[in-house]
Amino acid sequence: MIAEIIAIGSELLTPFRQDTNSLFLTEKLNELGVEVAYKTVVGDDRDHLVSVSRIALSRVDIVIFMGGLGPTEDDLTREAVSESMRLPLKRNPDLVAELYARFAARRIKMTENNVKQADVITGAAVLRNNNGSAPGQWLEGQYEEKQKIVVLLPGPPVELKPMFAEQCIERLRERVPQQFIATRVLKVALMPESECDARVAPIYKEHNAVQTTVLAAPGDVQLHLKARAETLEEAQQLVDDLAEELEDELDERVYSTRGESLEQIVGYYLQMRSATLAVAESCTGGLLSQRLTSVPGSSRYFLGGAVVYANDLKTAFSDVPPMLIAEHGAVSKEVAVALAEGIRKRCKSSLGVGVTGIAGPGGGTPEKPVGLVYVAIADGKKPEVMKRKVPGDRERVRFYASQMGLDMVRRKLI
Amino acid sequence: MIAEIIAIGSELLTPFRQDTNSLFLTEKLNELGVEVAYKTVVGDDRDHLVSVSRIALSRVDIVIFMGGLGPTEDDLTREAVSESMRLPLKRNPDLVAELYARFAARRIKMTENNVKQADVITGAAVLRNNNGSAPGQWLEGQYEEKQKIVVLLPGPPVELKPMFAEQCIERLRERVPQQFIATRVLKVALMPESECDARVAPIYKEHNAVQTTVLAAPGDVQLHLKARAETLEEAQQLVDDLAEELEDELDERVYSTRGESLEQIVGYYLQMRSATLAVAESCTGGLLSQRLTSVPGSSRYFLGGAVVYANDLKTAFSDVPPMLIAEHGAVSKEVAVALAEGIRKRCKSSLGVGVTGIAGPGGGTPEKPVGLVYVAIADGKKPEVMKRKVPGDRERVRFYASQMGLDMVRRKLI
Repeated sequence: MIAEIIAIGSELLTPFRQDTNSLFLTEKLNELGVEVAYKTVVGDDRDHLVSVSRIALSRVDIVIFMGGLGPTEDDLTREAVSESMRLPLKRNPDLVAELYARFAARRIKMTENNVKQADVITGAAVLRNNNGSAPGQWLEGQYEEKQKIVVLLPGPPVELKPMFAEQCIERLRERVPQQFIATRVLKVALMPESECDARVAPIYKEHNAVQTTVLAAPGDVQLHLKARAETLEEAQQLVDDLAEELEDELDERVYSTRGESLEQIVGYYLQMRSATLAVAESCTGGLLSQRLTSVPGSSRYFLGGAVVYANDLKTAFSDVPPMLIAEHGAVSKEVAVALAEGIRKRCKSSLGVGVTGIAGPGGGTPEKPVGLVYVAIADGKKPEVMKRKVPGDRERVRFYASQMGLDMVRRKLI
Repeated sequence: MIAEIIAIGSELLTPFRQDTNSLFLTEKLNELGVEVAYKTVVGDDRDHLVSVSRIALSRVDIVIFMGGLGPTEDDLTREAVSESMRLPLKRNPDLVAELYARFAARRIKMTENNVKQADVITGAAVLRNNNGSAPGQWLEGQYEEKQKIVVLLPGPPVELKPMFAEQCIERLRERVPQQFIATRVLKVALMPESECDARVAPIYKEHNAVQTTVLAAPGDVQLHLKARAETLEEAQQLVDDLAEELEDELDERVYSTRGESLEQIVGYYLQMRSATLAVAESCTGGLLSQRLTSVPGSSRYFLGGAVVYANDLKTAFSDVPPMLIAEHGAVSKEVAVALAEGIRKRCKSSLGVGVTGIAGPGGGTPEKPVGLVYVAIADGKKPEVMKRKVPGDRERVRFYASQMGLDMVRRKLI
């Protein structure tokens, strides 16, 4: 069975807003074995909406509408679906009573336009909305003599997600042919996508039963594996077998085998080794600390550190000798190591990381071009340092440098 | 004239990837006076693609295809548009020669499949691709006896954006009815959307000729104004008049009147006053520094600071007396002020900011719940402190707290 997801709202046709619900719905539909074949965005225009609805009904088995269920005259999804399926709307007295009760509880007078939220397409089941006033609808019916499933959901993610999870997934599961799907996600840091793909493609191409998707971000490659089978065990075995071969090939370059983020993995390792971390950042300007502290509970292993943009602060907060900066320049292997060792001692942490580089767009020279980054790690014994020339803009250079810092901590603790 | 944007690629129908090019294209089309009426996403399936193409040609004036122009057998956009418009493909010998030259220059043997990138729809003009191998196409022709503009663009943003900007915008401008459109963006920090809208709605509703869109993020409200008129001056006057009234109403709550980010504005003010800034962050964990340093050239006014997650570091890097923490707790007005004053002295900056709070999800108590944030600013005279109880998750609390820090610096310097 295939599905189409239709997002309704003129604001989704401006440069400012984008549908994001469809990623959530696609994930849930895929887990049931339903592929999304089309996504459509349409404005709050009744004729456009009726036409889009008819096209979807004629080409897929499951049509999911998002948005346009509110009380305003721009909210036309109910009316358009009713017209396209030739099933009249009927006002549901229980829903009318609930709407009045809802407003009364908030001591607000309900304006007349709200009542249309109680209009239900003939034959549809009402989907309760526990996070807003507009109920959803679930409809099974014929269109051009074929059986269709039509779902109307409210647009706000906070209303749509629980409604779909709690009231639609089980209904769908009973109606789609039973399938078992297993997934795995492997993540690799600091390997170019082309190099990674050259190493893993010969392996995953041997596994026809597993669908492999390679996604790349700066300094980060993700391998998404998906398999279907007669039983869940069989599907799991298929993805696990491929994941194992891929891990054997990429070895310790794989930082995550269950989809965890690099900052989460670094947190696991630090806790496992009862280690603590402090960082001194120049070109990343706080990004490395910010990523580490985005993980709840990170205060158990991340002590803090310094953002040492000015050279004086490299000395004041990480004891980098001014002579060292004068001799080698702020962006140098020597200063990266001094930052790592200095912040480690100052913070009394087991590990220290120092980052220095040229994020651009200005500040580059022929010897030290934009994108040059040094990251060092100190553990009180022998410090290590990594040098990279990162292509791309300021944001990309900074992200890549933070990725270097995190991955060096991970590899130190493996 | 209205347009439809069609994104092609099975990866855009997975939970992992989303079309973002359409936001760029919508902005450029809107500037020309062209509204986007539909957006469609379809996979690499020839029948689906032909059907989507026919539907679009029948309902809009301008159809823009993105993606599916590469050399693989999954790249079917040329073929599908050719079929739907009944205009055969012809291999362009100049393009074939260019493809061979391109590969030769890289000393790579060109595989046969690449040649199909030289196939051009009859009557189409070739759009050169300076950032990749697949050329685009510009076609004007009849469909169901109506004149249509059809544009084929490559999918990668780095190829699509310059191709559209350099080779399509002027062509479109010559073909769409001349219109003059002016826009303005006003931004407001730390005001709830409902409060902001209650104050500005009575004003913008009086200006029917200006289309006003209100967008809200945590601690940030944006007012997007757009007007059309016979001349550019007239359109500009319309948005400027409304912007002026909105600024009068919201006064110094407006931080930006030309769309600049809050961190950019803070940078302007610091440079204008020849002031420097240092920050000591607890709950934001580096986010405030990271936002400040995301602006190119920020090293001119941002010296750095400390991420003081552990209480020891609040003392070590910002001289917060341990007794103060013991007495009032790390999350308190007193500690925020001590952080701001301490980091200012340590870094010898004109201004110091201190942030402390409970980002959650753990760590809250009845007296100090998750979301409680104190931000202080010190200037060597009288420190100021702001307290907020921020609703929402860890990410939202942290972002809001960084917004508080930036806006306090701005208001100090007005």
